[in-house]
Amino acid sequence: MLSDLPAYVESLGSNARRASRELARLPGKTKVAALNHIAGALREGRRTLIDANALDLELAGKSDLPSAMVERLKLNDKRIDAMADSVEQIAGQVDPVGQIIEGAVRPNGLRIQKMRVPLGVVLFFYESRPNVTSDAAALCLKSGNAIILRGGKEAFHSNRAIVQIISGSLRQSGVDPAAVQLVESTDRALVPLILKLDRYIDLVIPRGGESLIRAVVKDSTIPVLKHFTGNCHIYVDAACDGIEQQIVDICVNAKTSYPGGAVCNAVEHLIFHHNAAAKLLVNVCNALKQKGVEIRGDDSTRRLYPDAKATTPEDWDTEYLSYIVGIKVADSIDQAIDHINTHGSRHTDAILTTDIRAAEKFVTDVDSASIMVNTSTRFADGGEYGLGAEIGISTDKLHARGPMGAYDLTTYKWVVRGEGQTR
Amino acid sequence: MLSDLPAYVESLGSNARRASRELARLPGKTKVAALNHIAGALREGRRTLIDANALDLELAGKSDLPSAMVERLKLNDKRIDAMADSVEQIAGQVDPVGQIIEGAVRPNGLRIQKMRVPLGVVLFFYESRPNVTSDAAALCLKSGNAIILRGGKEAFHSNRAIVQIISGSLRQSGVDPAAVQLVESTDRALVPLILKLDRYIDLVIPRGGESLIRAVVKDSTIPVLKHFTGNCHIYVDAACDGIEQQIVDICVNAKTSYPGGAVCNAVEHLIFHHNAAAKLLVNVCNALKQKGVEIRGDDSTRRLYPDAKATTPEDWDTEYLSYIVGIKVADSIDQAIDHINTHGSRHTDAILTTDIRAAEKFVTDVDSASIMVNTSTRFADGGEYGLGAEIGISTDKLHARGPMGAYDLTTYKWVVRGEGQTR
Repeated sequence: MLSDLPAYVESLGSNARRASRELARLPGKTKVAALNHIAGALREGRRTLIDANALDLELAGKSDLPSAMVERLKLNDKRIDAMADSVEQIAGQVDPVGQIIEGAVRPNGLRIQKMRVPLGVVLFFYESRPNVTSDAAALCLKSGNAIILRGGKEAFHSNRAIVQIISGSLRQSGVDPAAVQLVESTDRALVPLILKLDRYIDLVIPRGGESLIRAVVKDSTIPVLKHFTGNCHIYVDAACDGIEQQIVDICVNAKTSYPGGAVCNAVEHLIFHHNAAAKLLVNVCNALKQKGVEIRGDDSTRRLYPDAKATTPEDWDTEYLSYIVGIKVADSIDQAIDHINTHGSRHTDAILTTDIRAAEKFVTDVDSASIMVNTSTRFADGGEYGLGAEIGISTDKLHARGPMGAYDLTTYKWVVRGEGQTR
Repeated sequence: MLSDLPAYVESLGSNARRASRELARLPGKTKVAALNHIAGALREGRRTLIDANALDLELAGKSDLPSAMVERLKLNDKRIDAMADSVEQIAGQVDPVGQIIEGAVRPNGLRIQKMRVPLGVVLFFYESRPNVTSDAAALCLKSGNAIILRGGKEAFHSNRAIVQIISGSLRQSGVDPAAVQLVESTDRALVPLILKLDRYIDLVIPRGGESLIRAVVKDSTIPVLKHFTGNCHIYVDAACDGIEQQIVDICVNAKTSYPGGAVCNAVEHLIFHHNAAAKLLVNVCNALKQKGVEIRGDDSTRRLYPDAKATTPEDWDTEYLSYIVGIKVADSIDQAIDHINTHGSRHTDAILTTDIRAAEKFVTDVDSASIMVNTSTRFADGGEYGLGAEIGISTDKLHARGPMGAYDLTTYKWVVRGEGQTR
């Protein structure tokens, strides 16, 4: 079958569409039972999962996959339990389908309701971590959507084993197993083909490197929700007396709390108001240095902290995704906001200040999905926001912005009930 | 300037982005004052508007523009008053910007708010009716967005006069006139250029013929909300005793209440359950015929109503946008729903029935933006739904579905306030 890519892709799409029609009608309790069945089956199938994962790890050992990627790829008892826990948590969430978002009786007696319904079919591109497979499948089931999963080839055997367990649970729960399909080919030629299936697929979510996302946007005739780069900033305001230690702690946390800094909500650039720079820049740099962070800075930064490497213009547009930070000194909050709106990626940006006017200005004027006031950029996360598991963090402005949970996998329909009204 | 299209397009985009930053910060009362000023200026400027419109009408007379289009193009005192009324109505709506959609205090003390904010810059393609110019500009101002308007060349002089009046009002209200810009070139080569300005423009709404929309989707690197075809259906269920007259009235209303049937929420196809066909099909056809509607039908229809012209397979996918209707007889509600989900355009579909189970099944299973129960498809409209003026009717599922008002021109940001929390 895989030798005929167009036919294979067509079957993925049409099967998913068929399953989505059934999913949209499923009672909530059937979805909850299926999700709990999946959680149990993942726990019981841990031997199979670890064996399949060993195959991926063996292949990774033979290739030149960076060690941080290999670490993310690894499955063990603790990680499998966490996957199952997450599926159970999603099972327990409120079911978004059928909720009435708003409604009114119109003067002519028509009863109008805006009712939440599933999107239909979601195509999901992602990389390395196998737990994303079960999270994404569970979020789509909960919200009544069929999903087509296209994981990275480095996690192929792990992902296939996870999806086989999910399929078994779906079958036993009386749900069409085509609700969760894994793309069984790692052929790159498949990508532009599947991205043309707008008659079957309602949404594409690419979650991965910038080149993947650009390729998807270029080729897709299906709407795309981009989980793009996180070039996140912290702006340290002039008004910083009395919160000096907080500022040091937050900068260190935002840069280093995730292993290797390889996460989209890690901070990449610090901007100090020149007053704050005089008081705090050296302390922050020393604390970061101690954690092993490479420090780059503009001329003003290097006058205060000569160990900093000089930044190039490219630095300001770069998401390092590692233990590197770029530091700039600004003349004013306006200059800082301008810099963020010009060079940032509209993901997450923070202000640290004691001045309420500065905080409100930053909140209003910075055009990003998440704005943090006196806290770490690392909190930009579906779990931290109380959404449950997330399928990604949207850097788009349409439909969903920031962390995306099960609600963001729904749309609505207008239901209008009358008794013969004409216009 | 217009001889250098790339530079012109760049200036439209960068001016709009600059204006959008200011608009996002404007207090609601400034926007209300500006909108009311615009309404007054449109009324006072009626002479200028009618003169400019006369130029368009003269050119239309020399070209082969269909008479329905010429009719839509015409401005007179009544229509100008209606334009001004609509702007005043939009001024009086609740301001969506700054609304807190939801919020919570997290266990770690972080205060999280999902706050409604403007999208930024909207690019709007549309055709013929000049009142759409003032409606769209007013909706964007109200929701804090800058707009770039690209109307049809047949209404160019009218649109330019309207935008000149709006610019004057904005200037006098202390708002950057780049908030509302008309594309001053009708050169088609401009379209692919402007559709690449994703660094300045946040959303494209094409409202017009199918070829325009397909061209926009193909060329755009900016997210698009499609106002696509309305291939709307009415399904007349087996359970129709006692509502026979309602059914006739609704079918006639849905087909003929808009002049020429040239509106996206007019019905294009009727599907009768075979029981209903036996009782009602001839009555409905006679009533439609009397209004001058051309009737096409499948074999079963023609057995009952031999005057019907035979449908071809293309009929079922066609939005006639005129006084033509295609009729099909179905064996079951499932067959009808299948037909609608296969051939419809996900715009608006209606069921007429006395059976509550049939109604609920139709509401759940038909995958369209608006589902009507016992009322006319013609009610699918922002005004009728209580949204105020609409900028279009989305046939997409992402972001906004169905009639789109000022709320649908917003996104949100997550605002997270803490006092030093780290993760």
